[in-house]
Amino acid sequence: MNNNATKKARADHPIHDLLAVRYSPYAFDPKPVPTPMLLSCLEAARWAASSFNEQPWSFIVAGQDQQGAFERLVDCLAEANQPWARRAGALILTVICQSFSRNNKPNRVAGHDLGLAVANLTVQATELGLAVHQMAGVNLARARQTYNIPDTHDPITMIALGYAADPATISDEQLAERERAPRSRKTLAEFVFGDAWGQTAPQVG
Amino acid sequence: MNNNATKKARADHPIHDLLAVRYSPYAFDPKPVPTPMLLSCLEAARWAASSFNEQPWSFIVAGQDQQGAFERLVDCLAEANQPWARRAGALILTVICQSFSRNNKPNRVAGHDLGLAVANLTVQATELGLAVHQMAGVNLARARQTYNIPDTHDPITMIALGYAADPATISDEQLAERERAPRSRKTLAEFVFGDAWGQTAPQVG
Repeated sequence: MNNNATKKARADHPIHDLLAVRYSPYAFDPKPVPTPMLLSCLEAARWAASSFNEQPWSFIVAGQDQQGAFERLVDCLAEANQPWARRAGALILTVICQSFSRNNKPNRVAGHDLGLAVANLTVQATELGLAVHQMAGVNLARARQTYNIPDTHDPITMIALGYAADPATISDEQLAERERAPRSRKTLAEFVFGDAWGQTAPQVG
Repeated sequence: MNNNATKKARADHPIHDLLAVRYSPYAFDPKPVPTPMLLSCLEAARWAASSFNEQPWSFIVAGQDQQGAFERLVDCLAEANQPWARRAGALILTVICQSFSRNNKPNRVAGHDLGLAVANLTVQATELGLAVHQMAGVNLARARQTYNIPDTHDPITMIALGYAADPATISDEQLAERERAPRSRKTLAEFVFGDAWGQTAPQVG
């Protein structure tokens, strides 16, 4: 588990340390992710819940040490993400299947269920001392073309997975500032409702 | 943490126990969820990652003990889910905001990010000895109407949260059978790709 005290959640109610210390670093140490660790992270994703146990997720994976394959994934990132994300030990492109395999009907929650899987991956990564930074900033058309992703599927995000580094290693000043800032969140009162929309639940007080 | 040995993931690679023992029970013990536990679960969701830190999720919550409010949530479930889900200590309707608040542009990953938050909630619940069963089987139109959810937002899933019970307490024979069956998943080789779509990554072997 990492120990970046600045980034630890200042939680109003007790939460598990694996959830509290997780953050999305811009500073990565370009050390490879050992294969057994990568496999444990993917295994954690594998056991997530999904609607009708569809498991609508797929992952396209490459480590720093697989130069050609890694560069192909870097090229699928939005340009702004490339400088810092290419320092991660591994990159993972996430993909969902749009329909249920059992009846070919649209799967309204495929993206949601991918999120469940990636959060599992993140818990496992954190447990192993690794960090995860997810990106929606992906060149989706390029990803589809590069990997020949069929029309029945959609690329969704890219995941940078690796060892977090000291914020001082970031050359981009704006990113360095974000990296040093504490994490902030809405209060529970702003998004936990009871009797009606916008009305805070009595439990939250 | 629960200890339903049948349901524990038979993982091919080591994963954290909180991920391995999680399953989605149909058998709930209709005991209320203590408020501090409910708040810790929601707090865990609060600290999830999200695109641009948008935190696009909202939750509408009621406990068994809040009879009117609980029944209103039960009524928003697909009929097939009502008999077992009404035994859960609490129900939570999940809602996303469709657009980024900073620029009003569509948030392509709002549902995905809700998944990240709910997986966090699930880890925290598991840690506290609670169980989570998520449902896509929701009467979305009724949910929108009941809670006056604005057009800018979408209800997505319902979460049953509470204490898992002995499968023997399930009267529906089909559900009881599912409850006794081990969890199954695709192999990593089926969804972790390397150089091209459908080609298993070399790390998975």
